[in-house]
Amino acid sequence: MSSLFVRTLREDPADAEVASHKWLVRAGYIRRAAPGIYTWLPLGLRVLAKVEAVVREEMNAAGAQEVHFPALLPREPYEATDRWTEYGPNLFRLQDRKGNDMLLAPTHEEMFTLLVGDLYSSYKELPLTLYQIQTKYRDEARPRAGLLRGREFIMKDAYSFDIDDAGLEASYEAQREAYQRIFTRLGLEFVIVTATSGAMGGSRSEEFLFPCDIGEDTFVRSPGGYAANVEAVATLAPAPLPASEITKLPAAVVHDTPDTPTIESLVALSNAEYPRADGVAWTAADTLKNVVVTYEHPGGEREVVVIGMPGDRQLDMKRLEAVAFPAEVSQATADDLTQHPELVAGYIGPAVLGPNGAPREESGRGAVRYFLDPRVAEGTSWITGANEPGRHVYGLVAGRDFTADGVLDVAEVKEGDPAPDGSGPLELARGIEIGHIFALGQKYAKALDLKVLDAGGKAVTVTMGSYGIGVTRALACIAENTADDAGLAWPIQVAPAHVHVVATGKDEAVFAEAERLAEALESSGLEVLYDDRPKTSPGVKFADSEVLGVPYTLVVGRGLATGVVEVRTRATGERVELAPDDAVTHLVATVIAALG
Amino acid sequence: MSSLFVRTLREDPADAEVASHKWLVRAGYIRRAAPGIYTWLPLGLRVLAKVEAVVREEMNAAGAQEVHFPALLPREPYEATDRWTEYGPNLFRLQDRKGNDMLLAPTHEEMFTLLVGDLYSSYKELPLTLYQIQTKYRDEARPRAGLLRGREFIMKDAYSFDIDDAGLEASYEAQREAYQRIFTRLGLEFVIVTATSGAMGGSRSEEFLFPCDIGEDTFVRSPGGYAANVEAVATLAPAPLPASEITKLPAAVVHDTPDTPTIESLVALSNAEYPRADGVAWTAADTLKNVVVTYEHPGGEREVVVIGMPGDRQLDMKRLEAVAFPAEVSQATADDLTQHPELVAGYIGPAVLGPNGAPREESGRGAVRYFLDPRVAEGTSWITGANEPGRHVYGLVAGRDFTADGVLDVAEVKEGDPAPDGSGPLELARGIEIGHIFALGQKYAKALDLKVLDAGGKAVTVTMGSYGIGVTRALACIAENTADDAGLAWPIQVAPAHVHVVATGKDEAVFAEAERLAEALESSGLEVLYDDRPKTSPGVKFADSEVLGVPYTLVVGRGLATGVVEVRTRATGERVELAPDDAVTHLVATVIAALG
Repeated sequence: MSSLFVRTLREDPADAEVASHKWLVRAGYIRRAAPGIYTWLPLGLRVLAKVEAVVREEMNAAGAQEVHFPALLPREPYEATDRWTEYGPNLFRLQDRKGNDMLLAPTHEEMFTLLVGDLYSSYKELPLTLYQIQTKYRDEARPRAGLLRGREFIMKDAYSFDIDDAGLEASYEAQREAYQRIFTRLGLEFVIVTATSGAMGGSRSEEFLFPCDIGEDTFVRSPGGYAANVEAVATLAPAPLPASEITKLPAAVVHDTPDTPTIESLVALSNAEYPRADGVAWTAADTLKNVVVTYEHPGGEREVVVIGMPGDRQLDMKRLEAVAFPAEVSQATADDLTQHPELVAGYIGPAVLGPNGAPREESGRGAVRYFLDPRVAEGTSWITGANEPGRHVYGLVAGRDFTADGVLDVAEVKEGDPAPDGSGPLELARGIEIGHIFALGQKYAKALDLKVLDAGGKAVTVTMGSYGIGVTRALACIAENTADDAGLAWPIQVAPAHVHVVATGKDEAVFAEAERLAEALESSGLEVLYDDRPKTSPGVKFADSEVLGVPYTLVVGRGLATGVVEVRTRATGERVELAPDDAVTHLVATVIAALG
Repeated sequence: MSSLFVRTLREDPADAEVASHKWLVRAGYIRRAAPGIYTWLPLGLRVLAKVEAVVREEMNAAGAQEVHFPALLPREPYEATDRWTEYGPNLFRLQDRKGNDMLLAPTHEEMFTLLVGDLYSSYKELPLTLYQIQTKYRDEARPRAGLLRGREFIMKDAYSFDIDDAGLEASYEAQREAYQRIFTRLGLEFVIVTATSGAMGGSRSEEFLFPCDIGEDTFVRSPGGYAANVEAVATLAPAPLPASEITKLPAAVVHDTPDTPTIESLVALSNAEYPRADGVAWTAADTLKNVVVTYEHPGGEREVVVIGMPGDRQLDMKRLEAVAFPAEVSQATADDLTQHPELVAGYIGPAVLGPNGAPREESGRGAVRYFLDPRVAEGTSWITGANEPGRHVYGLVAGRDFTADGVLDVAEVKEGDPAPDGSGPLELARGIEIGHIFALGQKYAKALDLKVLDAGGKAVTVTMGSYGIGVTRALACIAENTADDAGLAWPIQVAPAHVHVVATGKDEAVFAEAERLAEALESSGLEVLYDDRPKTSPGVKFADSEVLGVPYTLVVGRGLATGVVEVRTRATGERVELAPDDAVTHLVATVIAALG
């Protein structure tokens, strides 16, 4: 400790919102170099190396082979798959001295696809899974929470190559199992949830989430075992009413509904002025709310889009983002609305939207595109806007009185909603994505023409999977999971050292004994951090030891006069006094047992 | 081998000029992703990891502590030291989504300086040496020779921090010794040469060169032990003549010298028309040649500069580049000369240059700057241009008839020139820079205000060193050094495996025995590459084995019928037949002995 390049800080970093960020900085493990970009100090680097080693061992055990791609890459392969454009401002782009477009890679699907195409040509060479542990770049709009959402970070990314779907399924399963072993070894609780494929494309995708209140991802689970990222939850839609039944429904009627721009005011007025025929009170769920959003397409074009959903639901922007990709979505601005005088704020109804609306005179284009929540099934009847201030239409029937350009399942999922597989009511929770696996299928192989000859000599397109682990993010999650009010508290598997030997006082005999014990621990194969600082007070040393979070502390101090030293367990706070050599024996046995 | 992601290529890559590039690509160790940017395949990555491990072990043994900085960094620290500008087009620059200037770091002096300033404040905390093994970026104008001159490459860079010069000297020596151990362990011959500090600044600097005909660096050595990079050779200048002697020299005379734009034609005409008074023939060394070059300053300004040197010397652009930094230099273009009508091509003389020339009317600025080779000492007498076509001046005496803006020691060094320390005639050789150590002094600490309190409580500026090893380049040098006509031939210390077991033929018993032997070798701690391909011919397997370059090959084939297998040594071609178990014993003993 007297020469180690580490300084614990007494103050929280100004921008620290979460425990892992705060303590990793205060304990001198990492240091901010720029927003979302961190330097690793010696202790941090040791933990990182251990996390990487676990990932590497399990990847190798799963039969994946390690390679290493450049971070700085030419534009062309990413152009071929459209990701140069689709990534939008999240991609760090630059030009070299000759004016060639280049990028800092956020993931490497394209390069792996090209490499396998370069080297392989036959089905006999497959299956193949390659991986790398590599520095990745993403120009996050809001880098935050230290390592949890950075702009330069370390990922393990793996890619599988198979001749057919069955092969892909097996490769996917092998990675899925390796992920479970990795997170288990790292001591990280995880939930595997169904996910959307988003930017990656592909048929099947699951996320590994570390459940955690500060997580940015919301997921759902049911008593029956359903689990999904909230973006991937499919709403259970009512069955459409047969056409013969629909025609029997009463015709729609427009009523005056002054001053009812909100769902609440509309429901209140409806119950007062236009009560339901069956005497049941109208609720927000009887109204059809039309939400105006804006898509910004990759080319820069802005498009106003309207989404209709029951009035008791909110639009979930994250769910919309997932389906709107590669367009970026936002709430429509006042300016967007000015462009569309047919959209009467508070009274928007289907009649002017999508297939129901007239083409817009000025542009000759069709009406604003209109999408419906799955609950607005054919034959359902709604109170909705009449496209005039202070007027709504009652009994407007989907499929009879209006249609849409499609279904968008982007309303918020609520606690208690039914799981789509019938496994019971959903519970909502938050988590941090630490792994994501994708059955990509042929998207990249097609775009980059990766084919091999099959047994019959025919060229067939390879099918791929891609599998990522946020290595630095997983490390932060471990810190998040184990830190307490006093500092970090590493699991033994990834701790920067196994035992922190602290010599206290000024007695040279104490330091000599502490050094002897530290050497005894090291010669038994344990990793030791020895606090040999001669003029530092015991209080500061103990506080530092708690901040640094080495699993066991061996305190050598005044007790030595009566023949005892103290072994402290960081995570539990447990303290035991033992004779010095017994302490060594005890620690060696404990650590070796814990390491498995 | 049946599942390993490697394919040997029969053809040389189109752009391969050197053996390491050719064989690393053909053996499937690396693969080009973009000019000067390479992907590491599994075998290459194994070698790289071993090279890195040697570097890491010796850095740790030398007391350096490992950290890891980002590659993507903000502009500001590099602005503070002027390197943002000085690096010119060699720096990869980019902007993030908010328009902030960023760069991909070529070296990290600034960031290390800031980090130490962040954490340390007292002389008691020094000395300190930190290092990292990290991916670096440099936008080379001419990336070439595979890993030897790349745009994305791995370096070990270390930085020392001391309170005084004596401390810096000790830190510098510790790194210097570590470098010698590293290159010795890697099996790389090296020469330590005095170097210029170039872009880094600082007082003392040495390069570690791997002597090699394809090297881009020229260095000199003398029988007496002098060794320097050619850029750093100081010319032994004659002592200036005392002023009293100078005045005794005959006055200069202008002669007609028609059609003598070259030194050769001038010398011939001079001997014919104006022979020396002492009867000795004029030689090129009696003429003063004035070479016109252009400096492009970091801000973009172009400046024409003239350098005077004896006519028997050529300008060495690399020596000029080293002293002109941060300006970039080139031969003057016709256009540059058009800007300066006073420069009469072929007949340029001192009278219009530097302090001798009149300020230029159009700009009001001084005459073109003029620098002299050290051999043009005060009192030396020259034949040189008279600034008119077809006329030269004879007996023009430096210090009496003309002066200059300074001395530039940038003429080429020739085989046989005297060593500056008097240790004998210089021999010229070529090498590849694999390490470079700099006693930086206070340049960075001053620019970034790195101070600590000394024993008296006074804030003093820290003094620094910086120490680099080109890790990927060193790997390429090892390949360059050991490859032969058949492929790579790794030293055991960095080989991707120790033994390549090759099973030949179709006999299942052969494969079973080969596998048994491979397992026996592995269980003794050796790393084995097993060629288990069932349908590949022995010829192809042997050729692959030679290309891949594993130090020992164990051939299990037909000989098994008579109870023998064959052990081949890749580097020497030696072959011995042994009983299978004896072969294992022999290989284990040989490898363990070789690994030390």
